[in-house]
Amino acid sequence: MALTRRPPIVGRYMQEEVALASRNSGMPLEALRYDVTPAGLHYLLIHFDIPPGDAAGWRLGIAGLVERPRELGLDAIRALPAKTLRVTLECAGNGRGQMSPRYPSMPWLEEGVSTAEWTGTPLAGLLEAAGVRPGAKEIVFRGTDRGIDRGTEHDYARSLTVAEAMRPDVLVVYAMNGQPLLPQHGAPLRLVVPGWYGMASVKWLAGIEAVAQPFDGVQQLGSYHFRAQSGDPGVPCTHIRVNSLMAPPGIPDFYTRRRLVQPGRVRLIGRAWSGGGVQVGRVEVAVDGAWHEARLDPQAGPWAWRGWSYEWDAVPGEHVLACRATDANGVVQPMEPVADVSGFGNNSVQRVQVTVGA
Amino acid sequence: MALTRRPPIVGRYMQEEVALASRNSGMPLEALRYDVTPAGLHYLLIHFDIPPGDAAGWRLGIAGLVERPRELGLDAIRALPAKTLRVTLECAGNGRGQMSPRYPSMPWLEEGVSTAEWTGTPLAGLLEAAGVRPGAKEIVFRGTDRGIDRGTEHDYARSLTVAEAMRPDVLVVYAMNGQPLLPQHGAPLRLVVPGWYGMASVKWLAGIEAVAQPFDGVQQLGSYHFRAQSGDPGVPCTHIRVNSLMAPPGIPDFYTRRRLVQPGRVRLIGRAWSGGGVQVGRVEVAVDGAWHEARLDPQAGPWAWRGWSYEWDAVPGEHVLACRATDANGVVQPMEPVADVSGFGNNSVQRVQVTVGA
Repeated sequence: MALTRRPPIVGRYMQEEVALASRNSGMPLEALRYDVTPAGLHYLLIHFDIPPGDAAGWRLGIAGLVERPRELGLDAIRALPAKTLRVTLECAGNGRGQMSPRYPSMPWLEEGVSTAEWTGTPLAGLLEAAGVRPGAKEIVFRGTDRGIDRGTEHDYARSLTVAEAMRPDVLVVYAMNGQPLLPQHGAPLRLVVPGWYGMASVKWLAGIEAVAQPFDGVQQLGSYHFRAQSGDPGVPCTHIRVNSLMAPPGIPDFYTRRRLVQPGRVRLIGRAWSGGGVQVGRVEVAVDGAWHEARLDPQAGPWAWRGWSYEWDAVPGEHVLACRATDANGVVQPMEPVADVSGFGNNSVQRVQVTVGA
Repeated sequence: MALTRRPPIVGRYMQEEVALASRNSGMPLEALRYDVTPAGLHYLLIHFDIPPGDAAGWRLGIAGLVERPRELGLDAIRALPAKTLRVTLECAGNGRGQMSPRYPSMPWLEEGVSTAEWTGTPLAGLLEAAGVRPGAKEIVFRGTDRGIDRGTEHDYARSLTVAEAMRPDVLVVYAMNGQPLLPQHGAPLRLVVPGWYGMASVKWLAGIEAVAQPFDGVQQLGSYHFRAQSGDPGVPCTHIRVNSLMAPPGIPDFYTRRRLVQPGRVRLIGRAWSGGGVQVGRVEVAVDGAWHEARLDPQAGPWAWRGWSYEWDAVPGEHVLACRATDANGVVQPMEPVADVSGFGNNSVQRVQVTVGA
């Protein structure tokens, strides 16, 4: 029934893309002002439908290659040691919509990133209690959200290697910003994998299974790979690439979102982040192509974006502003999108067009 | 600096439309299952930027043609008689994105509608305390959100006639679904005008002014009018037109959102609503063009949408489902969009394409 092949889109956008952009949610860029993104402003990429989450009857099954398979209710999970982490998540497809030709999917321009404080229990504790057998290679996570993608009907599911799953900061989460999870964020239970693109943080988590072979599900092998050409085996999307955004200064025009700024001293602010536990080491701001060092705020833990600011002396006229982050390993954002068949991992430098009034 | 004229768009969508669809939020249609839309799933149309809301220092000014001008802080407003109303709001531009040629603005397809429980104090009480003078014709409401639209820089502002403003269910609101207003919904203070399209419910409300002449602001006179042709004086958008939506049954294909349904008895559910205090009297469901009576849930107060359901015997094959509401005055949704220059008030019948498996 479903389209199994989606030809790339050239130029303007399809109604299917607009429908995805309307039902999913980006973080409005002015929300970069918040250290922690408020409820309802966190970006959302919901592959299928938000399933009805029955908290009272919810069961998390832990099965497969484990010594002691089990099912846990929410109360049992809440009774385990709790941990709260501030984590920046970004959609692997963020920036896809800037490209043409373009893979037919959610046309993120740049707003598919947010930060929340997630509370849950370390996955490692659950796995240790179940006793992962030596033959297990991966842990598979299944949500209750079901649909069709690339022609195959499936529950959304992803895997991690056992070593990755045992990292102490991978959490089975039941609260966000101090409140019970909202339906759209995976209520009542989800995974959060800090440092990875969002697809790894499986929502509506119902099943955990230890398996002997690499997981070959649609969302693992069929999607979320960097591919230079269609049909390539590709490289899996994992850690978030170094990236940054600026909160557009001044006030917007409703339709074009171009900015009008008063002349004089303007404090430009934004956020920079990177995945895999690698910190942001430097942010630069460009005014009309000339780069300047930004001031970095303190790092708020190992997994959260880092605030930055730059004092700009705005003079009347048309200007293009940009920001660019470099991570602690010296990896820097590219100026232009890196070609990718599915539009994954576009961390190219944002541009903000500004008119400074006379 | 801003485009003052936006030529209509023919065919596929512009990047500006996708940017608006990404930063604003539609209600995913599966959320029609909730009587009250949960936090973060309520639709959002934010004209400019979400302003930083300083609750502690917030002052609501009441001025103009009143006997006793005043400024009130949040605590003073919270100390006034409180009222909670369940209100369905819909964006006047909902359905715009279905049209071609199409006005360049937020390209809602059908998801710009939601229901919340709003808590605040009746505006009438505030106006009575201030003493509106006999010469006042309208009450103007100003938000702190500022930007440019149709070439003019302004704070977002709208007016109501004094009679409309004095209706007992027009509220100055500080809580939504039992929680303090979220930034994107107008924190710390907003207007809610039940029965009207959403543009009347001014967010980030800072000023109330009684005036002797009809308000001619950009969002009052320049926008939010039904116009058959560009340049027509037009008719102001006011009450929400009768409308309805179905929660698409079964499971979706990720990209096309086409639905796959198992054969057999399927419970179709949805919501129907109308504005101006006129109730929904009837909902019909069409299966492949044949209309059937839906079962109506009880009406939950005068301003909220009404649930409906229909038991469908799904047989294998391709089907088109639709729903259609009729209000208590016998006004029925049109089958096709009503032409409007700016794409306002499109309450035409939704279609849902469904494949029933064998």
